[in-house]
Amino acid sequence: VTSPALVGEAGEHELLARIRARVGPPPSFVSVGIGDDAAVVAPERHTADVLTTDALVDGVHFERRLVPPRAIGHKALAVNLSDLAAMGATPRVALLSLGLPRELAVAEFDEVLDGLVSLAERHHVALVGGNITRSDGPLFLDVTAVGSVRPRRILKRSTARAGDVLFVSGTVGAAAAGLAWLRRLGPAALDGPDAEVAGAAARHAVPEPRVRLGSVVARSRVASACMDTSDGLADAVHQLAASSRLGADVLLESLPLDPAVLSLHPDPAEGLTLALGASDDYELLFAVPRRRVRGFKAAARQAGTLVTPIGTLRATAGVSLLQDGHERPWPAGYVHFQS
Amino acid sequence: VTSPALVGEAGEHELLARIRARVGPPPSFVSVGIGDDAAVVAPERHTADVLTTDALVDGVHFERRLVPPRAIGHKALAVNLSDLAAMGATPRVALLSLGLPRELAVAEFDEVLDGLVSLAERHHVALVGGNITRSDGPLFLDVTAVGSVRPRRILKRSTARAGDVLFVSGTVGAAAAGLAWLRRLGPAALDGPDAEVAGAAARHAVPEPRVRLGSVVARSRVASACMDTSDGLADAVHQLAASSRLGADVLLESLPLDPAVLSLHPDPAEGLTLALGASDDYELLFAVPRRRVRGFKAAARQAGTLVTPIGTLRATAGVSLLQDGHERPWPAGYVHFQS
Repeated sequence: VTSPALVGEAGEHELLARIRARVGPPPSFVSVGIGDDAAVVAPERHTADVLTTDALVDGVHFERRLVPPRAIGHKALAVNLSDLAAMGATPRVALLSLGLPRELAVAEFDEVLDGLVSLAERHHVALVGGNITRSDGPLFLDVTAVGSVRPRRILKRSTARAGDVLFVSGTVGAAAAGLAWLRRLGPAALDGPDAEVAGAAARHAVPEPRVRLGSVVARSRVASACMDTSDGLADAVHQLAASSRLGADVLLESLPLDPAVLSLHPDPAEGLTLALGASDDYELLFAVPRRRVRGFKAAARQAGTLVTPIGTLRATAGVSLLQDGHERPWPAGYVHFQS
Repeated sequence: VTSPALVGEAGEHELLARIRARVGPPPSFVSVGIGDDAAVVAPERHTADVLTTDALVDGVHFERRLVPPRAIGHKALAVNLSDLAAMGATPRVALLSLGLPRELAVAEFDEVLDGLVSLAERHHVALVGGNITRSDGPLFLDVTAVGSVRPRRILKRSTARAGDVLFVSGTVGAAAAGLAWLRRLGPAALDGPDAEVAGAAARHAVPEPRVRLGSVVARSRVASACMDTSDGLADAVHQLAASSRLGADVLLESLPLDPAVLSLHPDPAEGLTLALGASDDYELLFAVPRRRVRGFKAAARQAGTLVTPIGTLRATAGVSLLQDGHERPWPAGYVHFQS
């Protein structure tokens, strides 16, 4: 028996069988997994359910010709785990809804799935259900991820207070620089020409969600608010401040600009503008009360993640970008729907 | 200030604001709703979470030119509530992931949303989150619905036993007949020419999920297995029997054929074949132990739903379709991915 070469020749049952073969037996808290009308999951005691969904669409969030199929599956789950991390939640299960163009190769389907399942396994996330449909348009993957968090540890974005310090994890602008390299060099950018380019390309193609940082910070209760930077750091600062009915001062010099940005944009001002508006970094932005800064840094060390203070929150509305004590105009936040 | 006419002119924030304006304040068990990185929902005591996701794609599951926008939103939630009903679960919350072509009118977006939210309100389902993205292809809606069920009441499809009676709710073939009428008459089919056509068109366009029937049957514990007929009754009987490692005999004469099928196909054999293979009915197929048949019928009466015995399950593998004691060939199950 030969396998069909294209998903358009394979039936839904055939593709479902391939998924079931790749996914191991579910953990004991999953009483019904893949293959019934719905999945059944026992909640963890003393925790609330945290639910998020995020879709990746070919041509909008990734380009099939620029990244390997594994990266597409990886990223579809990663962006959702980033949302759970931003709430301080520990991920538990995921559902995958696929829209497949007929001409997608079954081998490519397998690799997309493998990228998703590999990341799920690393984070002990069980794939418990989903849906497969034909798409006459682009390939799309919509993942729903469910995690758990103790109610008092939830990290909202609306609970920051005036005087809190803003911290961002990792570096900013790497994913955008990586995308620029992928567009110049194609998938080869993931292998070099040097470690900086390969690293930046990987930040775009296979981002690592800050799951451990989110959960360690939530457990130590050292942050007053958090959100992820998926729509760019500028957008995140505006959203977090506005949700908390506060304003913010951000110090331009303090931003942990990724070196890959400077190799593309030798003018630091241009690089910073790009980095502030750039989406897809999947870092976490925290508001930290001053008396918790030491504890916050200890939590970040425990999670093994670099964190950098970039500004402060204040009671008066508006968000200012400061350089040498002077206010600078904000770059327009990257609004991905309009792009 | 004039509102943008097309979603391609509106930003994600504008569309999100329209959703928040339409959705009321969440119930008390939702501690974080729309507007954060993820939703936070307190589980109900002594219950398990039931999770399902199902996508509707323009041109595959509906045709924008044939149905009003409200119907699209309604159906996107309805198909998911049907999956929860098939597990015996009571729905609680939903997430909506939207892929929007730029040329979609904002007024149409509002109506799609209104159709979904109206059905959600009727079933006390809170819309707690989601995602909005651009689609360069067709409009798609991917809904994730979450319900709850006491662990001992879960209705799986794999737990039927030999000797159980198969029951199906409602009538079969109505949705397919309705789609045929919609294709002939356009959206006008929903208003007539007579009640039978309008009713069948509605069964395709705005199906009513059997939420109450599923939960009453689960509560009374009178069924050994259940699944919905979204991929057709023939497919459902095969799936339920195979999942339970059983075979089945289905009596052709017993099938509750919808009258709308006969008005399109005066030859009853052709009508029955169509009805067995037809998807989109969103009825429930139950396996009922013989000693529970009386209790099952009482539960169905309590839910106000017609149920019809259509055959029995047996220990030997294979599924037979019987007419006057003679075996008839099964129509090929409608495999929606290959259509």
